[in-house]
Formats: sequence, C-alpha cells, structure tokens
Amino acid sequence: MSTSPRPFNFSAGPATLPEEVLQQAAAEMLDWRGSGMGVMEMSHRGKEFTSIAEQAEADLRTLLAIPSHFKVLFMQGGAIAENAIIPMNLSRGGVVDHVITGSWSQKSAKEARKYCTAKLAASNEADHHTTLPAHGSWQLSDDATYVHVCSNETIHGVEMHALPDLAALGSTAPLVIDCSSHIASRPIDWSRVGLAYAGAQKNIGPSGLTLVIVREDLIGHALPDTPSAFDYQVVADNGSMYNTPPTYAWYIAGLVFQWALKQREVTPQGELTGLAAIEARNIAKAQLLYDYIDGSGYYTNKVAKDCRSRMNIPFFLPDDSLNAAFLASTQGAGLLQLKGHKSVGGMRASIYNAMPLAGVQALVDHMKQFAASHG
Amino acid sequence: MSTSPRPFNFSAGPATLPEEVLQQAAAEMLDWRGSGMGVMEMSHRGKEFTSIAEQAEADLRTLLAIPSHFKVLFMQGGAIAENAIIPMNLSRGGVVDHVITGSWSQKSAKEARKYCTAKLAASNEADHHTTLPAHGSWQLSDDATYVHVCSNETIHGVEMHALPDLAALGSTAPLVIDCSSHIASRPIDWSRVGLAYAGAQKNIGPSGLTLVIVREDLIGHALPDTPSAFDYQVVADNGSMYNTPPTYAWYIAGLVFQWALKQREVTPQGELTGLAAIEARNIAKAQLLYDYIDGSGYYTNKVAKDCRSRMNIPFFLPDDSLNAAFLASTQGAGLLQLKGHKSVGGMRASIYNAMPLAGVQALVDHMKQFAASHG
Repeated sequence: MSTSPRPFNFSAGPATLPEEVLQQAAAEMLDWRGSGMGVMEMSHRGKEFTSIAEQAEADLRTLLAIPSHFKVLFMQGGAIAENAIIPMNLSRGGVVDHVITGSWSQKSAKEARKYCTAKLAASNEADHHTTLPAHGSWQLSDDATYVHVCSNETIHGVEMHALPDLAALGSTAPLVIDCSSHIASRPIDWSRVGLAYAGAQKNIGPSGLTLVIVREDLIGHALPDTPSAFDYQVVADNGSMYNTPPTYAWYIAGLVFQWALKQREVTPQGELTGLAAIEARNIAKAQLLYDYIDGSGYYTNKVAKDCRSRMNIPFFLPDDSLNAAFLASTQGAGLLQLKGHKSVGGMRASIYNAMPLAGVQALVDHMKQFAASHG
Repeated sequence: MSTSPRPFNFSAGPATLPEEVLQQAAAEMLDWRGSGMGVMEMSHRGKEFTSIAEQAEADLRTLLAIPSHFKVLFMQGGAIAENAIIPMNLSRGGVVDHVITGSWSQKSAKEARKYCTAKLAASNEADHHTTLPAHGSWQLSDDATYVHVCSNETIHGVEMHALPDLAALGSTAPLVIDCSSHIASRPIDWSRVGLAYAGAQKNIGPSGLTLVIVREDLIGHALPDTPSAFDYQVVADNGSMYNTPPTYAWYIAGLVFQWALKQREVTPQGELTGLAAIEARNIAKAQLLYDYIDGSGYYTNKVAKDCRSRMNIPFFLPDDSLNAAFLASTQGAGLLQLKGHKSVGGMRASIYNAMPLAGVQALVDHMKQFAASHG
C-alpha cells in the first residue's frame, strides 16, 4: 500500500472515509479476526456477523446518544427510497407537512404525494434556497401525521443549526428529519425528533445502507401496500434481517462509528471526545473556509450566515469562465471532486467528518494562490 | 496477509468469494488505480465509478449472453424486496401465476398477494418440496400478466435444470424467475424469460445489490404507488442511478464477473471458458458430492434426482443426535457454515461458483472419516 499522503477528496457522496477505517477493512478483507472468512462472505445469521452488527448498533447509540425508545433500522435504498417508505409507514394516508429548503426536501415532498396529502408548510424557494424560513412563518396542519424537514441540504449548503421545536410551534406531530448529509457531525436533540433517516454515504460509510432511527410508538401503522422489506414493524421485529442486510456496508459503518468514538480534540474549553470532538473540528473547518471566502473579495458563498452548512459549502468564482481552470488546478494539487452540483453551479466543498482540518487548509491555500494568479 | 490456505466456506449466502477478487479489492481499498480515492469514496457520477459500472454491466452481458432487448438494473433490497417490486411493476393489479417449489417461491407468492391476484399454478408441497411439479400439470391462467418461478430453491435444494417453455404450455405470459442462488452458474435461455432477478450474495458479490434483468417491453407499467426508486422505468432511464446505487457492491460484482470470464476448464470435450467452464466445474462438484452421499449408506439427500440443485445440497446424518458432533468436527477441519436451514434441518453444503472442486473433495473426505468413526 502507498505510504504517500492521499489527496483530499471533497466529494458530496459517496465521500472520503477515514484512512484508518480503509486500512483496517483492507487488512481484514480475507480473514475477519481469525474466522477464516472475509466479512462479505459471512452468513448474516452467524455469530461472527451478529457480533459485528450488534457492536455497530451499540456504538451508534453511544455516539449519537440515541434514547432506548428509538429503534435503529439498517435498511436499503437510500434517502430517495425512504421518501416513499416514510409516508408508507407513517402517514396513514392522511395529511403531512413538508418544509422546503432545497432540492432534497423538494424531492421528498413530491414523492410523498403518492401516498398522502403532502402540504407545503414553508419554503425558501423565493430566496433560491439560500435562507431558512423563520419557524414562526410555518403553516402547520392540525391533522398532520408528521412534519418533514431536510436538516442539511447537500446541494444548496443550507443547514438547520437547531431543529425546530414543533411543540412550541403548536404542533403535536412528530418531526421527521432527512439528516443524510450531516448525521454524526453534531448532536441530535432527540426530544424534538420522531424519525431521523440518512443514507450512509456521507458521514457513515458506503452507499447502499440507510439508517432509520425511529421512535417506537410511530411504527406498526404501515399502509397495506407497503413492501414487507420496507415495513418498519417487520424490519424492527427481525433486527433488520427480514431481508439479507447490506452486511459489508454495515461492517464499514461499524468501523466508522468506532473511529468516531475515538476522536479527541483539544479546545480552549478542554479536551473533547467522540461526537463533541467531531463537532468542534467541523466548526473549525467550516469557519476556516467561510472566513476565507467572505474575506477573499474573490470567491462568494450565497447562503445566509445563520444557516450555512458545516458539511457542504458551495462557492463561486468571480466568473463562470474561470471554473474549468480552477478545477484543473485543484486536480493537479491533489484536491478532488470540487465541481458544484449542476443545479447550483460553481464549486462545492463537502467537508464531512473524515475530512481533516489540514484538507480544508490545503483547499484555502490553493484558493488563495488561484485568486492571486487569476485576479 | 496470511499465506496459509483459507478454510472452505459453505455458507448459503452471503457466501464465499473468489480469493483473487478479495485480494484485488484489498489492494485497491485506499486508491483505485491511481485515482487517489478508494471505490467507496467516489461519486457515483464521476468518470471513475462510471467506468467501473459500465464495465461491470458489459461483462455481465457477455458472461450471461444477455440479449440487447433486456435492461440490466442494479438495485437494492434483495430478492425479498423484489417480491413486492415485481408485482408493483409488472402485474398491473391483475392476475399472476405462481409455481411453488420451496420456501422462496412460497414467500414470493405471499408478498405478491398485496398487489394482485396471485394464483397457485402448481406446487410440490405434498412432496415436502423434494420434487418439481411436471410442466404438464401446471394450471396457467389465460389472463396472467406473468408466471413466477424460483429456478433454484436455496433452502430445499431443488433446481430447475431447464426453464419451462411457457409458449409450449399454451401461455403467452412472460416468465419471471428468481435465480438468486444459481445465477451465473449455468447459461440462461433468455428466449424463455421475461424477467430474471437475483440477490447478489451467492454467485455475484456482497449482499445489498440486486440484479434485475428485464425485457424492455415489460417495463413502464408500474402501479401508481410504486416508489420511484423501485420503478423499473425510472431506474432504467437513470442507468440505475436515480438513487445512489450500492457502489462498492457493484464494483465487487464487476470483479467477480471478470474472474468468471477468465475461468478455464479442461474437459473430455475440450477446453471450456467463462460460463461454460464454470458450469462444467459445477456439474463435477455436485456429482462428486451427490455420488458420495448416495453411495455412502450413511448420509442421505431427499431431493428427486432430476431436480437436485448443483448449488445447495442439503444432507442428513443417520440420526439428528449426530448433528452437533458433525458440525464440531467440520469446524475443526476448516469446513465452515455447514449447518442446515432450520426449516429443513440436517446439513447443507452450498457450493457456489467460488467453491473449488478441492473444497468439495475436502468435504467428502471429511464426511467419509466422520462416517467411519461414527458409523
């Protein structure tokens, strides 16, 4: 294996993983801890994989402080499949409220309309998805079975830094959050959440695994047409093994959870560990990049400062005609996958948990050089 | 990495993979061919993963001689999810015919009843799933939108050595086959097939990837409640990337396809390559084990000889009280995961493509020793 440093990979997902996780996965590929089998080759019902699966769930519960009255489901299909699976399981064919804050929440609302009456509670569309609608402006339905938000919009770079307190807004409905692109980057206030879901391919592991963390009392009401493999009650009753789970992705996720729990960060407030350390590092990384962009007089980020994502940072050069030269220069500098999403344009730096501060510093240094030579 | 030979792993799935595939995956884990990224870390829309995905599909088409009027879809959820997804896409809410030959075909019929009128065309239940119903006895509906069979029953060890010719049986319906546990072990007569589906975790790669190979004219008729991520038209129109696909599993499948295409087997009929070589080896492996069982006077297999599976071979000791001792002895001998499925009991040897003849020989040698010492 190469000993030279790897390039910094800013992909929005699938995304960079901790190097030590990949090293361990490579070392265990042919023989997991003396079992004589690689993890891909194990029966999901054998004692070896059972121990991997249970440890991963336990570590995730520790990392995110998930209360015991929430089930953790290891599913398939990504957040896009969940956009159908959630209304199938939770809507009872009634009314649900959707808050639109970018491409992903729009997609969720559109899919939900197949299964229930999905009402528009609020939208930032008039601001081109660069703000968040004030909580007081949300039009919540009295009879909603849930309220759906995307708590971090991967494409538009808009993040809810606090989850809405629906009770304070006069709603008794549970909150459903698509937290695909910032799960495990910061704590989650579970007292405000009914269901959290996330595709794994940003902060958790490989694509093909979806985490659904759902309050127990919300399951058991699936519509009759719900496929058994996607009925939360069936999945929960079978420990996420009604169908064969994506075992290798589950294993990699477990390695990532162990890596996350081991993280330490020394701050002015003392040494932090686990999720607190990760959050402190994410704050520092995002601040480094946003501060440089804002002060550069060259690059711009269009998102309102109170809702800028710590994970996904779109930015623009002074002129789109510079984009190709910028991308060519980053590629040569070992800074990968910075091209912005086609619906927004420009550049996007996704700086998930596995991106070190040194990677953001390298990007900022390169951006300075480019601005100086193309100013 | 260890240089001692690996144990032989008879798991029914997830199952043993070719050692050279695992070696290559381990070597490329941190850096796929100079890209600076592992495969798990690549955007599914980037040029690197696009090349992996396209090569895998092309190699699968070559390996299985898939005609150009079939779409190959890389999906998620396994065969159990497809048990719902297929009637959602193909049944139009009408009548479908199901042939029952074991646990898997039973499960398929039960799930289909959520979406359409699933009729029982034939069943081997009276024979405890140890035979196949004669084609002439099938009660096919005039108005069926498809006929569903499981062409290899993983649990009961029953295999269709030829697919039914529905046209010859007077039906114009397309044939749908669950070929999860014998895909790529033998040729498929595509002229008799409308849709073939398979979870990857037997002959293809890791769990979490499902292959759906479907005649183009059958797609585009999904029921309105079909989740977009599982609508074959949507999946096909987006090159299996409407939702983020299980990229790493797709990559491993591609390595397995390349391994399969390289296989060579010298037979009395000359040197065979690719799928023909694999089939010849599978015939030899199954014959070795069945011949020994039948001649042993000790072990038994209950499946009728004309429909014994080449892939999954259940067998029984003279008395169930010997099972624990047998399993303990195999574990010590480097022969793994031989315990039978709980619904059948006894033992089961799954001898998929990646199991070499030497593995079956080692199992037979061990069975002989055990019989001699416990006779």
